[in-house]
Amino acid sequence: MKQPIDPIQHAEAASRLSVPLFEELRALLGDRATASRGVREHHGKDESYYPYALPDAVVFPHTTEEVREVVNICRRFNTPMVPYGVGSSLEGHVLAIRGGVCVDLSQMNRIIKVNTEDLDVTVQAGVTRKQLNDEIRHTGLFFPVDPGADASIGGMASTRASGTNAVRYGTMRENVLSLSVVLADGRVIRTSRRSRKSAAGYDLTRLFVGAEGTLGIITEVTVRLYAIPEAMSAAVCSFKDIGGAVNTVIQTLQAGIPIARSEALCALTMKALNAHSKTAYREQPTLFLEFHGTAASVKEQAQLVQEIATEHGGEGFEWATLTEDRNRLWSARHNAYFACLQLRPGTRAVSTDVCVPISRLTECMLATARDIDGASMPIPMFGHVGDGNFHLVILVRPESETDLKEAKTLNDRLVNRALEMEGTCTGEHGIGMGKIKWLMKEHGEAYDLMLELKSTFDPGNLMNPGKLVADAA
Amino acid sequence: MKQPIDPIQHAEAASRLSVPLFEELRALLGDRATASRGVREHHGKDESYYPYALPDAVVFPHTTEEVREVVNICRRFNTPMVPYGVGSSLEGHVLAIRGGVCVDLSQMNRIIKVNTEDLDVTVQAGVTRKQLNDEIRHTGLFFPVDPGADASIGGMASTRASGTNAVRYGTMRENVLSLSVVLADGRVIRTSRRSRKSAAGYDLTRLFVGAEGTLGIITEVTVRLYAIPEAMSAAVCSFKDIGGAVNTVIQTLQAGIPIARSEALCALTMKALNAHSKTAYREQPTLFLEFHGTAASVKEQAQLVQEIATEHGGEGFEWATLTEDRNRLWSARHNAYFACLQLRPGTRAVSTDVCVPISRLTECMLATARDIDGASMPIPMFGHVGDGNFHLVILVRPESETDLKEAKTLNDRLVNRALEMEGTCTGEHGIGMGKIKWLMKEHGEAYDLMLELKSTFDPGNLMNPGKLVADAA
Repeated sequence: MKQPIDPIQHAEAASRLSVPLFEELRALLGDRATASRGVREHHGKDESYYPYALPDAVVFPHTTEEVREVVNICRRFNTPMVPYGVGSSLEGHVLAIRGGVCVDLSQMNRIIKVNTEDLDVTVQAGVTRKQLNDEIRHTGLFFPVDPGADASIGGMASTRASGTNAVRYGTMRENVLSLSVVLADGRVIRTSRRSRKSAAGYDLTRLFVGAEGTLGIITEVTVRLYAIPEAMSAAVCSFKDIGGAVNTVIQTLQAGIPIARSEALCALTMKALNAHSKTAYREQPTLFLEFHGTAASVKEQAQLVQEIATEHGGEGFEWATLTEDRNRLWSARHNAYFACLQLRPGTRAVSTDVCVPISRLTECMLATARDIDGASMPIPMFGHVGDGNFHLVILVRPESETDLKEAKTLNDRLVNRALEMEGTCTGEHGIGMGKIKWLMKEHGEAYDLMLELKSTFDPGNLMNPGKLVADAA
Repeated sequence: MKQPIDPIQHAEAASRLSVPLFEELRALLGDRATASRGVREHHGKDESYYPYALPDAVVFPHTTEEVREVVNICRRFNTPMVPYGVGSSLEGHVLAIRGGVCVDLSQMNRIIKVNTEDLDVTVQAGVTRKQLNDEIRHTGLFFPVDPGADASIGGMASTRASGTNAVRYGTMRENVLSLSVVLADGRVIRTSRRSRKSAAGYDLTRLFVGAEGTLGIITEVTVRLYAIPEAMSAAVCSFKDIGGAVNTVIQTLQAGIPIARSEALCALTMKALNAHSKTAYREQPTLFLEFHGTAASVKEQAQLVQEIATEHGGEGFEWATLTEDRNRLWSARHNAYFACLQLRPGTRAVSTDVCVPISRLTECMLATARDIDGASMPIPMFGHVGDGNFHLVILVRPESETDLKEAKTLNDRLVNRALEMEGTCTGEHGIGMGKIKWLMKEHGEAYDLMLELKSTFDPGNLMNPGKLVADAA
């Protein structure tokens, strides 16, 4: 498969790193500082459709102290820094569009302390969500936030990620208790103590959660854990149209039923899942559900929701109570993005991410379904309907101007529709490079306040410049 | 009862307001701008033990636009502004210690829009929590955050308040969706759209929640609502010592039982409640519990918790399933602070508010119980044990230097203990005037970042100066 832009030919591909800077990084980190073409290429791309933008060097620190030293060196050389987890971002967050040093935190992958009694854990930023859950399984606790990719906890904090469990357990916003952050001037701060709540001062934790590395580099994260429920039961249910699926979830929430997961997927997405995961789900609009609790309460919740679904035209209810059946179902769901990519080989995805108040969700999804009906490319649609958040995966040939233009038109229509409905341009992917204009429209004068925050924390505009807010003129 | 400092005699009592400033406020608001002694006195005190600090004038705006105009006028006259809800703060938040204009938001008490399908409501900042719940009762929804006082929603947002329901429903941090804020320079911003989640830019909402009016004046608040559970059941259970009560709650949380409320009260507090509320609870360390859910799940939760309590020496389990019995129980709990004040007539309370990781809570409460055993005054202890947060109500005669000194020593020991346990100096009351030194100790270098935030948002130090962070030198 042809790369969208051949990095070898890419105008930005030659490292412009100053030799004295690189020598300082080498003196600090030895082989863990590199300017090799291969490593830089690997760090010059994420999961988005944006073309390569290579850093001039990549470093692999092991400790917060090393990150601090890297920041101090880069600042002295007035060189941008781009934090990097696993590269699974969808909005170009990790692309080194102003060059500079990529700070790859993947070797900071140590679980520092599990506090089982307090239901929390402190990890280095490079620990991935699956690694975390594997390593704490013996405690009977789990970490619920689950974006599609096996992202790093630091990256998830930086993009305010969520996933399928947010309706019950919240997003990274609710689940991060505290952060260690290296600031642009080399200060290292801990944003909060480890108590479950605090009214002590400005909420620095929430300021860095979702800041996309533009205010500092997150090096350690303390997150909340939850007891693995006594019983978990998943279900699949088909509908004639996506509206039935969405309305089922809305009514469930209004009834106060503490559903754990509720994902709606269009017929095309189901087709992609079946092809990718070798499953045999009905290729109709579908709801994936999950219930957590005691055996009795799970049974009760499931029964109530099945009744609601039936009222909304749900049919073919199938239960997955065995762990392996549940895992197959959610693994299929987590792979939806990658499965969809294979609907049109050789393409990349323009992934949309609007989120609206749930009262407007059916209207928003149905209008969007009409929009994409006439599109020239396949466009699966699925989402976390309990949160009002859904995605289109617009499959574009990245070398095709017409594809990109069509995707842009569709996305613009969709975001404008969401904003008119008091929604947001991004529920969980973040702003990155491509949504800054939408952030301005969404926030109005509050966008200027974001610029002021950026200047306060990063007066030299060295922390992931060009992301979240526009570079200062 | 003698006032702690006679306002008539108080050195700061004479209004120092400039006449042209007052004339502008009058031109804008008419009678809703006043410099009358009585009104100023009423606004120069909160529920804390701090002495009166009167504003030079008080204004009663009705709209965000009027607040903006007040801010613009005060800024031009370089005059401090202090937002005021109902005056129930416990850390001197509303005291006009630098003089200036008190912006009383109590007449901004309109419920702007209830969105039942979206489970949210937008209110003016002066709406109180009880008013809100009264006005939305017909919708089948409720707002769970419940500090002891019938505080205003704007004040609760400003102090990041919580209460008895936080273990299940979260604090103001989790429950505020969006805010309208008038900034020091007169800009009016909306911090977020109304969707349940968003990854769009810096989390401005959380920056103003808990900022205690030092970054801007909150004029409108959108909060989450919840379906009133099908079934609610409360219980009272006695223990030989407070440790048994606390350990019962810890084990309940670790078992993943979704308990709604869990309050531990010492024997002295129970005595105060009985005297104040004419109840006949056992005067022993006691746990107040509540369970929310379907009828079956409430029964199941209650049974599991009763078993855990019994293991920890719980006895005399009494159920309150009737609404009026439940209300009596929680009304007694909400009045605990006021009931305690009556244990020693003529006194004021130094109210402590530490919060620690729950694994350390028993140790912290038992060590504190030993501390207060030898105190010269009655000191009831109670708290939201599910969050790790508890209070001492140290009953001081405000004119007594020795009482105040003893209270200070006790509080200092307690806060130091909490900080050593990775806890916070304040779980829900906020920093106000008295805890700034603890905020510095708790946050270290991160405190400097708070100073920088304050300077960015309020370069003239006019927004509630002297609160949360120290005045710039």
